[in-house]
Amino acid sequence: MHFASEQHLDDGILERAFTLGEVPGILWTPSSASTSAPAPLILLSPPPLGLRKTYPRLAARARHAAADGFATATIELPGSGDRPREPAAEQALADLRRAMETGEPVTDEIIDALILPLVEKSVPEWQAALDALLSLPEIGGPVGYSGGVISIGVRLAVVEPRISAAVLFAGSFVPRATFEEARQVTIPLHVLLQWDDEGNDRQAALDLFDAFGTKEKTLHANMGGHTGVPQSAGDEAGRFLARHLK
Amino acid sequence: MHFASEQHLDDGILERAFTLGEVPGILWTPSSASTSAPAPLILLSPPPLGLRKTYPRLAARARHAAADGFATATIELPGSGDRPREPAAEQALADLRRAMETGEPVTDEIIDALILPLVEKSVPEWQAALDALLSLPEIGGPVGYSGGVISIGVRLAVVEPRISAAVLFAGSFVPRATFEEARQVTIPLHVLLQWDDEGNDRQAALDLFDAFGTKEKTLHANMGGHTGVPQSAGDEAGRFLARHLK
Repeated sequence: MHFASEQHLDDGILERAFTLGEVPGILWTPSSASTSAPAPLILLSPPPLGLRKTYPRLAARARHAAADGFATATIELPGSGDRPREPAAEQALADLRRAMETGEPVTDEIIDALILPLVEKSVPEWQAALDALLSLPEIGGPVGYSGGVISIGVRLAVVEPRISAAVLFAGSFVPRATFEEARQVTIPLHVLLQWDDEGNDRQAALDLFDAFGTKEKTLHANMGGHTGVPQSAGDEAGRFLARHLK
Repeated sequence: MHFASEQHLDDGILERAFTLGEVPGILWTPSSASTSAPAPLILLSPPPLGLRKTYPRLAARARHAAADGFATATIELPGSGDRPREPAAEQALADLRRAMETGEPVTDEIIDALILPLVEKSVPEWQAALDALLSLPEIGGPVGYSGGVISIGVRLAVVEPRISAAVLFAGSFVPRATFEEARQVTIPLHVLLQWDDEGNDRQAALDLFDAFGTKEKTLHANMGGHTGVPQSAGDEAGRFLARHLK
């Protein structure tokens, strides 16, 4: 893990850009974090739009988390931002757009081609990032996850025992395989659903929530479109993590 | 409004039993409520089980609300507690139980017979209670509603302009007429749904949430069965009312 730059934000938050191999990322640590009092960590998984584009939203969430004493970290997804494009994923994205424009059904094949390789490649990267982050003396456990592409969150929740609780954003295109994996999730989940998000499939989101095997899951549905998660809903997700990680 | 008895609870809360005509009720006021600083009010609509049976849950919610500076009041529903039974409602309840025991469908006729007369009779009682409560110098506005039989809450939200925000418990048997009325609701709503409540119809609850005409609505679904609303979900509902009534 190589720290490329650092800056102090207001409220004493330290923001550091890093690279881990070829993967760029950002780490935010609250002023309360120290070697003698390591901060719990939230992995902030971005949507597949590139860290530069989503920085304002991610940084706002990092500030909120820092106010609760959490360090947060994010890494660039494969094929996003400045990372090399994945030809197969680009093809799947083109197929998806064509299907949506022409009103044809978005087939399981398109969704699988778009999402499954992303899950396969990114989950080990998140695990490597977790190794590196937890080796820093100012970062401790427990670890929460909040993001992004829901299939990545589901896979991480199943395979990564260091993650204790997760906030998931419902409604991405969801491969059938994710529904199967959802049954194996046993950690507490807080699922956010934008009820009138026309770009996503509400019924699939409800079915996925139903499929989660965990005994402790909560679904918060709100109005306001894809990026219109109300402030109060963000606060509630933050309280969920604070409740389960402290 | 006749006060029949009063007692001081811990935290300085004053609990008063009252009758309004033939309708018994309970009013809880926080120690902060005074003539010079009247408390905002939450109408705490009970499930149709009788105030005596539901007192522990209602009093717990009243205590939480008092900590936020709210007065709370509840009244006995028609046909519940010590109030005279309604023969038509008793018949509908018997029909409902028979249908559920034999696995027959619960028809619209049974649901209408069970719920619609209850709405017709109880809504004017809640409005009369609101008149009486708001005439007390230590009670002011704004007014929130939290309860109970969802069709009563929907009707009140439509016809009673003094109610500014409502917490509704999804999943009661819902007449078709309530779905139509739901479109006319314009106040902020916070809907609680117990996801695995086998006694209720989850899809109907989701359809009703979808039908609400208000631009500001949130659905919080949790595990835990009919009476197993998690503490965190109760806290969130309380924060919703505090946000909208202050």
